[in-house]
Amino acid sequence: MKVKLASESAATSTHIVLPDDTNTLGNLMGGRLMYWMDVIAAVAAHRHSRRVVVTASVNNISFNQPIKLGDFVTLEAKVSRSFNSSMEVFIEVLIDDHKTGVKKKCNEAIFTFVAVDQLGNAIEVPELKPESDVEKQRYEAALRRKQLSLILAGRMKPKDATELKAIFEDLAE
Amino acid sequence: MKVKLASESAATSTHIVLPDDTNTLGNLMGGRLMYWMDVIAAVAAHRHSRRVVVTASVNNISFNQPIKLGDFVTLEAKVSRSFNSSMEVFIEVLIDDHKTGVKKKCNEAIFTFVAVDQLGNAIEVPELKPESDVEKQRYEAALRRKQLSLILAGRMKPKDATELKAIFEDLAE
Amino acid sequence: MKVKLASESAATSTHIVLPDDTNTLGNLMGGRLMYWMDVIAAVAAHRHSRRVVVTASVNNISFNQPIKLGDFVTLEAKVSRSFNSSMEVFIEVLIDDHKTGVKKKCNEAIFTFVAVDQLGNAIEVPELKPESDVEKQRYEAALRRKQLSLILAGRMKPKDATELKAIFEDLAE
Amino acid sequence: MKVKLASESAATSTHIVLPDDTNTLGNLMGGRLMYWMDVIAAVAAHRHSRRVVVTASVNNISFNQPIKLGDFVTLEAKVSRSFNSSMEVFIEVLIDDHKTGVKKKCNEAIFTFVAVDQLGNAIEVPELKPESDVEKQRYEAALRRKQLSLILAGRMKPKDATELKAIFEDLAE
Amino acid sequence: MKVKLASESAATSTHIVLPDDTNTLGNLMGGRLMYWMDVIAAVAAHRHSRRVVVTASVNNISFNQPIKLGDFVTLEAKVSRSFNSSMEVFIEVLIDDHKTGVKKKCNEAIFTFVAVDQLGNAIEVPELKPESDVEKQRYEAALRRKQLSLILAGRMKPKDATELKAIFEDLAE
Amino acid sequence: MKVKLASESAATSTHIVLPDDTNTLGNLMGGRLMYWMDVIAAVAAHRHSRRVVVTASVNNISFNQPIKLGDFVTLEAKVSRSFNSSMEVFIEVLIDDHKTGVKKKCNEAIFTFVAVDQLGNAIEVPELKPESDVEKQRYEAALRRKQLSLILAGRMKPKDATELKAIFEDLAE
Repeated sequence: MKVKLASESAATSTHIVLPDDTNTLGNLMGGRLMYWMDVIAAVAAHRHSRRVVVTASVNNISFNQPIKLGDFVTLEAKVSRSFNSSMEVFIEVLIDDHKTGVKKKCNEAIFTFVAVDQLGNAIEVPELKPESDVEKQRYEAALRRKQLSLILAGRMKPKDATELKAIFEDLAE
Repeated sequence: MKVKLASESAATSTHIVLPDDTNTLGNLMGGRLMYWMDVIAAVAAHRHSRRVVVTASVNNISFNQPIKLGDFVTLEAKVSRSFNSSMEVFIEVLIDDHKTGVKKKCNEAIFTFVAVDQLGNAIEVPELKPESDVEKQRYEAALRRKQLSLILAGRMKPKDATELKAIFEDLAE
Repeated sequence: MKVKLASESAATSTHIVLPDDTNTLGNLMGGRLMYWMDVIAAVAAHRHSRRVVVTASVNNISFNQPIKLGDFVTLEAKVSRSFNSSMEVFIEVLIDDHKTGVKKKCNEAIFTFVAVDQLGNAIEVPELKPESDVEKQRYEAALRRKQLSLILAGRMKPKDATELKAIFEDLAE
Repeated sequence: MKVKLASESAATSTHIVLPDDTNTLGNLMGGRLMYWMDVIAAVAAHRHSRRVVVTASVNNISFNQPIKLGDFVTLEAKVSRSFNSSMEVFIEVLIDDHKTGVKKKCNEAIFTFVAVDQLGNAIEVPELKPESDVEKQRYEAALRRKQLSLILAGRMKPKDATELKAIFEDLAE
Repeated sequence: MKVKLASESAATSTHIVLPDDTNTLGNLMGGRLMYWMDVIAAVAAHRHSRRVVVTASVNNISFNQPIKLGDFVTLEAKVSRSFNSSMEVFIEVLIDDHKTGVKKKCNEAIFTFVAVDQLGNAIEVPELKPESDVEKQRYEAALRRKQLSLILAGRMKPKDATELKAIFEDLAE
Repeated sequence: MKVKLASESAATSTHIVLPDDTNTLGNLMGGRLMYWMDVIAAVAAHRHSRRVVVTASVNNISFNQPIKLGDFVTLEAKVSRSFNSSMEVFIEVLIDDHKTGVKKKCNEAIFTFVAVDQLGNAIEVPELKPESDVEKQRYEAALRRKQLSLILAGRMKPKDATELKAIFEDLAE
């Protein structure tokens, strides 16, 4: 199966925050943002795999700053690494500064998708080749996240998670 | 500020999965489920605090089994612990078995909300008192999750996270 | 066919009133509330019958007090009685008082559903057994409503509607 | 306050039944139809009163025949009578026969609206003058429905409901 | 294939402008109006052809005056001419003046639809017979628009577009 | 007022075609596509002007090939030229080929927006500087389209439309 570039999976979407997207403070609801994240991340995972993809898991997400009614919200998604049939997708959320026109990052999230056939069985996807420095960092970090998730699910022993070990030794000191 | 019971915050919602909620396999999209989770969890957090609440973060979520078009999806949310102005909310997702009528659990998620005033500033919320065994377990676990999140954000030293330590020592063996 | 308890059919849903749900006074539109009623009542009818159910009729509904933008609207539905293939469902509408946290009833409605097979033909449903006092009162009243509806449709003679008679004699004095 | 013709309030809307409007049998859900009814009836009540109008009550509605995915549903609403600040609106539901092109009636409903000022207080509306035979019949029947609703609400004594009496004497024989 | 009257294809729809339909100035978004136009024009084209119809093209549309939140927008669509398998549909947009109750025209648009069979192949539609003066004018103008569109698509030579010629000679003076 | 580059206004959005977006053939409805076009074009016009923008007009649009349920539709919008307070925006519609992954163009459209202040009055926008060859061609063509639209509106004499003249002399031969 041929190797594909991270950049080939890139997917972007810009939304205008409308009244029904907001809470009583006039800020974008977290649930709506996650819905948008899921759709654009599915597009990226599909562009990498050319297969039907289903959301397998979502990493911790923090909502640090409010996004307001009328804001332009741009979501940029790209596959960061693939593992057999699963793909980790990185999503960045950017807001247009209405005065300067500069897009500033206000959020990020990591979703994992699995490619499936028409019966819903997992099927293999191409390997991913990172090119830029950011893509390479995310590619490395994806392995540590994968190990952590396997350990938490009881499917890997902590001592076998070589890449993850240093971090945990730190935490346990 | 008076202490409130976990059960006072309980909130429930049942949805029928309609065509626009599904992907091309006819399964509920992860993004739609997260949107529903956010709304019902906000109701629970509001019932605990009687304040405007905003989504602060979402814990890891796994989507283990497909939910189909026409399924009845019941979400049950309850605050598991409060910390100053923030509240951790536990959400269980249940599906009606169309033949036996039994609701079986197919998913769970943990969201954190912050109570704010009309200017968006964080304000204190009541303490939570767990009663049932499950409520007590979640109450304890919420502290460990809080410590982990503070450590990952660099705002707590691992050695001060007493409750969390045993777990990490295990992982680092 | 086995008898089922009224409580086994209970279905609940909580909605937050969003901008698109309101009229120009900022109050929940009657039509949106009826849509929510229909969905949760269908869930209750399905829980009783385990069959596809279709709305057969709606009883008089009064909208006595305005429900505002941002309110939490909880709908509680339960089958009150079954007749061969039809089920009467009682729906109560409750609003959270944002200050006291008490849910107060602001509306009620009665819908009738019919269970059908995949061709749309009516099929028999289990009998319902009421337990609480309220369930028993509604169970009795459902028969009178059924008789009234048959009389109005010209399918029953008033003199045969024993349970209904006293009421009409009153009205005609 | 000037008298207005029934025909001046006429309002029409045609909808195409889309997937999200249907249940698992592919038929239009009752709740969606009631939502459409409420909107077009509000337009008619507004056209009669030139005021903000709110749904006050809904009469019995029967759903006799299924409406299918892809059907064209036309709703025709017209005020049938006004009483001080309230207006009774008659809604007919018609379906295009895809082969013959003839619109055939498949449903009807009666909604009551109240005209209000910006504070939500009821305000007087113009009297209605019926012209056609159908308009005149509905105008007469509206009074009987009004009396019945006042009796059921305990705000009128049955013996004072002159127009309604004959009907009930019949029913009570 | 039998000839049909323009009036037989008439289709009408009235919408209330809700918050999600508006931009940050509280005016109806052009895109929402075009969506409504497309649906009601499809109904008119279907009423003429009794076939599945697909949007083939849209003529220039100007949005001259703002339509506000809460406005009642009435769209009236009628087929103006048919050509083999295509139909030109004229849409008028009217707004209720809330004070006088008079509907005033604020917009118009011309859409072209093609009738297709279940495989998506174009199929012949009935000829249209205009009756009123307006219908006749639009019927004549439709031919000139058809010629212009064929010329712009390079499928007709300008010199063969007899009806169109006078206009262009004017423009080129 | 400073000159801005065409590329600074670029805006992109990718949608997955869901059931409610399609007609009975399972193809994307023209009206939905126009709604998406309007939103993304408004983003581009806003990025150029940093002002509230309203849709002023839409050029002819042709819908040449069906877009199917489940397709990924990417819209790319860029301002092609500005005139005082108005901006012409070019929108390209691309579909992912599910097998090869190549995005192929299936549609284009031209919308015009006007920048307004909070009272809805037109205000001046920056000049646009095209860079690439395509941007330059569109910049030139935009002037001819502007002249044509002024002539058709009776606000310019054909003989003054220097750039447009050659084309019409051709057409009128």
